[in-house]
Order: sequence, then structure tokens, then C-alpha cells
Amino acid sequence: MRHNMTVTALDTNGTPEDRIDAARSRIDACLAGLVPSEAIWPRRLHQAQRHALLSPGKRFRPLLTLFLAQARGLDAAKTDAAMEIGCAVEMVHAASLILDDLPCMDDADLRRNQPTTHVAFGESTAILSATALLNRAFGIIARNAEVPAEQRAELCDLLSYSVGSTGLIAGQMADLDNTGNASVSEIERVNRLKTGALFDFAADAAAILTESSAPQRAALKDFSRQIGLAFQLLDDVKDVLQSPEISGKTSGRDAGKTTLVAKHGLSETKAMLKTYLDNAKTALTRADLTGTEDLSALIDRQFAFMRDL
Amino acid sequence: MRHNMTVTALDTNGTPEDRIDAARSRIDACLAGLVPSEAIWPRRLHQAQRHALLSPGKRFRPLLTLFLAQARGLDAAKTDAAMEIGCAVEMVHAASLILDDLPCMDDADLRRNQPTTHVAFGESTAILSATALLNRAFGIIARNAEVPAEQRAELCDLLSYSVGSTGLIAGQMADLDNTGNASVSEIERVNRLKTGALFDFAADAAAILTESSAPQRAALKDFSRQIGLAFQLLDDVKDVLQSPEISGKTSGRDAGKTTLVAKHGLSETKAMLKTYLDNAKTALTRADLTGTEDLSALIDRQFAFMRDL
Repeated sequence: MRHNMTVTALDTNGTPEDRIDAARSRIDACLAGLVPSEAIWPRRLHQAQRHALLSPGKRFRPLLTLFLAQARGLDAAKTDAAMEIGCAVEMVHAASLILDDLPCMDDADLRRNQPTTHVAFGESTAILSATALLNRAFGIIARNAEVPAEQRAELCDLLSYSVGSTGLIAGQMADLDNTGNASVSEIERVNRLKTGALFDFAADAAAILTESSAPQRAALKDFSRQIGLAFQLLDDVKDVLQSPEISGKTSGRDAGKTTLVAKHGLSETKAMLKTYLDNAKTALTRADLTGTEDLSALIDRQFAFMRDL
Repeated sequence: MRHNMTVTALDTNGTPEDRIDAARSRIDACLAGLVPSEAIWPRRLHQAQRHALLSPGKRFRPLLTLFLAQARGLDAAKTDAAMEIGCAVEMVHAASLILDDLPCMDDADLRRNQPTTHVAFGESTAILSATALLNRAFGIIARNAEVPAEQRAELCDLLSYSVGSTGLIAGQMADLDNTGNASVSEIERVNRLKTGALFDFAADAAAILTESSAPQRAALKDFSRQIGLAFQLLDDVKDVLQSPEISGKTSGRDAGKTTLVAKHGLSETKAMLKTYLDNAKTALTRADLTGTEDLSALIDRQFAFMRDL
């Protein structure tokens, strides 16, 4: 089940854009190797997992994990480990999207320009494939031979923390409760949990893999906190403004929910988002990084939509 | 979130029955301490998790983990660790029951004499609470300070293996596909995955916590394999013979599925079950145990239903 990949550091040639593209290709190859082939029984489970996980995505979470770790001086021998742990984050993210899209949650038909997993494979297979992706994420971390056991155990502990009652699942619960009366601070809490928790994990993973000091780790966490807030804001804006043809997913899912865009209007939302991104970049300056060029390019690419508004 | 419990070995006074009851009470207290209180936000998520996890159950999986570990000479200082890891297995089991009962799977209304979790809390909360229980199980294992990191990582890896494409989830996928044409070997495969995988994990956990040798561990695995087969057979028989008033759960869920009872008839099924239990007891004799009295009593209690047929 393990992919065969020579241990090599990330590419350092070309422009930041080239390096992001190269890393994304490696991430896609790694993801494809980390879930069982469609030829392996139970085939339908694996088809559904691969449908959800391997559909074209920006891979922002694994890229963040990798580039944060690299900027903190990741040992080249641990590049594949950082890659796999970033991919584990992407698997948890894919699992959360499958569940969010279910008829009993957001009831969405379209995601990444494809039918959502329950539309393509039925509800029971969708639920089991989401469960399998979350479960596999823990296995990938726990089994990673390049990472000391103490770090693997800490990472599993932190992933559980990021997913459970203090993270993703709590955020989804609260989001389901949001029926139009949420306050700004309540919305921010949901955003932090639903999106921020996995960014926090990505930052923690980078800190752990590079054996960063407590202040360095705190700076990475400040960064991830701000990026998480910006990211969910961007998602809200896209949900309001983009047609499904452009976003590749069912839009208007937030109809009836209170969003920060609805509370503040588009112009103030843009200003908030700029503040979050500025704060994020400031946090990076305190993390003793070897360089921020690739991280900045990654963020610019991810948030290009806002720049064009 | 952690329960306060003095580290003490399991009770060794009284009869095996007394010791099983005492251990079960400690397991119930431990379970109650391992999921967030209903007073903690998001309350509905925690209410649903506690509904599913803390409803009266036999706690066979944690009892098996504990008694196997104790019979293999578990260090008294690790009693709480074995208890928590057994409880993690129970949480995964509870999560699987929540999902099995969903309208898109077995569509069951009653479980342990209570409304199933989706009936009591709605589908979205049920799905998220199952996900949260699975997720928390990994966190409990990963964070257990009494267990060396190498063992915690191995246990997380094994749990992932027991739940995923080689265990519980694969078994549930295959069970959903069973529409009446399954062969005996196919049914046995489903039973092994759906029920046996977590028993295998319980045996492995006992072996790891007691630093058992490879032959001792293999003997424990042989035992768990046989117990798993017996257990699912018992479940099939109960589904056919028991009314919901007695079993406390929706019966006839297997209607339309092929079961071993349907293939073999009740009398041969009873003989098969006796063979599995005999094999299980034989395997125990190869595991270098300090005693098997409590384990035998536990198995006798669990399989009392068959004896009375």
C-alpha cells in the first residue's frame, strides 16, 4: 500500500510557482499511493475514497505542511515523511467534505466539478469512505518509519484533538446549528474550528518534524490561526459570489446561514481578509524561517480570488 | 477530560463472576470519563456520543483486553492504560453500531433498549458522533502516558488496520452487499472483518502492553480469531430467534441477507459455535497465561444464550 518514492528534498530550482507545481505533483502521486487501488476488494469503498481524495484540488493543506517544514529547515531525509503527513491532513479534509455534502448536512451535489461522493456512490458508501479516510490518516502517521515514535504518537494525539470536540467535528456541529442568528464571534468560532483546526495541525506537524522550539512553534501556530480565518472568509465570499460553473461546487449552501460576508458586506470582508493575511505574514517573521518566498507565493495563489474582486 | 483513578490492579478477590462485575464497573466509569460531559459545548454532540457509548452494554471488548492482558502478567502500573485502551476499542465498537443502524445501512430504530442514535439525535449528529468516537479512540491511545511511545504508535497503527479496508469498514461494505447470494466463505469473511477485527486488536493490545513474545502473541491472535467467529455466529442466531423485547435491538435486520444460520440450520450452527469456543480455549493454553479462570467465565457469560437453546 506504500508508494515507492526515492527520498529526495523538495525541488529548489525555478520560480516559487514552479516549486509549488512540482510539490503539488508529488503530493498527488503520494495521495494516489496512500489509498488502496480500485482493483482491491472492497472495490467500491476504494473507488469512493479515490473519487473524493484524488479529484483535482489545490492541496493547500499538504503544501502548507511541506513548505512550513521546509522553511523551518526540514531534514531532507524527512521530506517523504512530511509529504505523507501532509497527505494525511488532506485525507481528513476530504473526509470532512464527504460528510459536509451529505443530504442530512449541506445536501450538495457538486464538488470539485464532480458529483459529490454520495451522489456517485450512495450514502452508505460515502459515509464509510469518509470514515475510512479519517481512519487511514491516523494509520499513515502512526506507521511512518522515518519519524521517531514519540513524534508519531504526539502527531496522532494532535490530529485527534484537531478533528474532535475541539476542532473539525465541533465546527461542523455548530455550522449545522447556524440558522441565521449567529453573532460575529460565534461565526468566527465556527470558522476557526471548521477550517482552522487542520491548519493548526499542519503548523504543529511542521514544528514537530523540524523539532522547533516553543517560540518557533507558537509563531507557526499564530500564522496558521490567521490563515485559517482568512481561508474560511474566502470560502464564504466564494459561496456568495461564484457560480457552480466557476467554483466547481454547489453554491448558495450558506443560504439561510449567517456568514461574515452577510454581517459585514463585501468591502469590509475584503479588508478583514487582508488584515488576516498581513497578520499571518507577520507571524512568519517570528518563526526563524530560512525563507518565506515559497510560502508567500502559495498564499498569494490561494487567495488570488480576493485580489481580483 | 481525563478521569481520576488511582492506579490499582484489577480486583483478585471473590469469584470470577465478581471480578468480571467489578471490572465492568471500572470500565463504565472509565468510559464516562473519556468522552466530554454533556455540559460542554457542543452539547448535542456529547449527548449523542454518551447516548451511544454509555448505554448498558456487556463491555465484552474492553473486558477481553483487560483479562487477556492480566492473564499475560500485566504490570499493575499499566492497569489503567489497559483499561483506557479497552475503552478505546469500545468507542470504536459504539461508533460502528451508530453507523450500522443508520437509515442508509440497516435502518434500525432500537439498540440496547434505547432509540438508536439517529432516532434520538438526528442523522447528522449521529454521523458526527460516530466519527468523533472513532477519532477519540486514536487520541486516547496516542496520549496514554503510562505506555511507551513506541507501543502507542504501534497500537494506533494496528487500530487503523483493524478499522479500515482490512477490517470493520470493509466488513460493513461487504455486509451491505450481502443480498442473499453469499457463500459460506464469503459470510465467514464478513464476520471475520466486521466482528473479528476488533477482537484481534484487543488481543494484540494485550500482547503489546505485556511485551509478549511472538508465539504468545500468535496464540492470543488465534484465540481472538475463534472468539470473533463465535461471536458473530451468536449475533446471527440472536437476530433470528430473539424478539426486540429480549435483545433490546431491532431484530430481523438480517432478513434478506444470507446468514450462517440460514445456510446450516440451528443445530449445525450450535455445533460450529461450540467448535469455535473449544478452539479458542485450546489457543489460550499456548499463550503462557497465569490463569484462564476469569477468561473462561467471561466467555461462558458472553455465550450463555447458546447454552440455553
